[in-house]
Amino acid sequence: MSFQSFPSALLEAAVNEFSKLPGIGKKTALRLVLYLLHQPTPDVEKFGNTLIRLKHEIHYCKRCHNISDTEICDICADSGRDQSIICVVENIKDVISIENTQQFNGLYHVLGGIISPMEGIAPSDLEIDSLVERVAQGDIQEIFMALSPTMEGDTTAYYLYRKLSACQVKITTIARGIAIGNELEYADEITLGRSIVNRTPFSY
Amino acid sequence: MSFQSFPSALLEAAVNEFSKLPGIGKKTALRLVLYLLHQPTPDVEKFGNTLIRLKHEIHYCKRCHNISDTEICDICADSGRDQSIICVVENIKDVISIENTQQFNGLYHVLGGIISPMEGIAPSDLEIDSLVERVAQGDIQEIFMALSPTMEGDTTAYYLYRKLSACQVKITTIARGIAIGNELEYADEITLGRSIVNRTPFSY
Repeated sequence: MSFQSFPSALLEAAVNEFSKLPGIGKKTALRLVLYLLHQPTPDVEKFGNTLIRLKHEIHYCKRCHNISDTEICDICADSGRDQSIICVVENIKDVISIENTQQFNGLYHVLGGIISPMEGIAPSDLEIDSLVERVAQGDIQEIFMALSPTMEGDTTAYYLYRKLSACQVKITTIARGIAIGNELEYADEITLGRSIVNRTPFSY
Repeated sequence: MSFQSFPSALLEAAVNEFSKLPGIGKKTALRLVLYLLHQPTPDVEKFGNTLIRLKHEIHYCKRCHNISDTEICDICADSGRDQSIICVVENIKDVISIENTQQFNGLYHVLGGIISPMEGIAPSDLEIDSLVERVAQGDIQEIFMALSPTMEGDTTAYYLYRKLSACQVKITTIARGIAIGNELEYADEITLGRSIVNRTPFSY
């Protein structure tokens, strides 16, 4: 469905703004805009202002580069968390995912991307130097790399491993294996092979 | 996926705003917000301001109740269009859909909804009186009802028919039949029956 004619230039502008978002086509954008048009004015104003504030007021934690409302994020500032282990992740979404598992109680370091020659992302574009600096300062015992098991993720992990190998720090990575709920039959052979080599004691 | 902890209250606020939209869950909302966070500030400001302007500056055409940037919309103001036929539609989206077919050159009347006792929408909630008034003023020859062939659509069409039957005006409705591209085999019998009764001369 293409739109040859919009009854209003402002409507068209709003539809265009929404359709710039990833995964939102013109038809969905129109539906969203017409929905907003029927909402109370203060609600729509709040929506608009939240977006504007988002860019102006959000901070990135000076230590781990996670999103934060303050200079140092709540996780870094939490003395109840294990300050000796840093989980290295690609982006903020990964921090949220890992926090949701409630299985990690250390600190984070957000790289802000992943090494990708295809997309022109070099190590210098990422927060790698600041990670090395955090490790060099001493108290860190373990660097836990929670990067995707993709070519880029593995490249980044290997680069970090080389960079940190001089430091007295244990380097770990997330376990790779058959995803829970997946059938063995459909697992690729590299994953299956890895899950055999890294077999773990049975627990229930 | 639920989010127990957000690294930032502002991030959470933005995600909540997006997830209020129809069809947007928390996970999609987070993806959209993180996308916006990586866009240039002026672009995000423009997005926010467009939403705010949407509610403040958009008009509804005084004649047909379509969305408009001016008091009378471009369609009503266009002397090149047939001023003797009014297409009655449920909402603004239908105007856009019909305009996109380029098969209609008359005027519109947007009811702003459809009679639905289930949802508590009564005839008085819709722009029906203003339609009767437009017809009573004279120049209209035909009222073309382009309402969905649903129970609510048919109820609304029947109500309009009764309201307008006293006026000297031809009342028509969109053709119902087998949708182009659909297989006869899968058509419901009411639609199939209707498409037999209303068979049309073959043309190619």
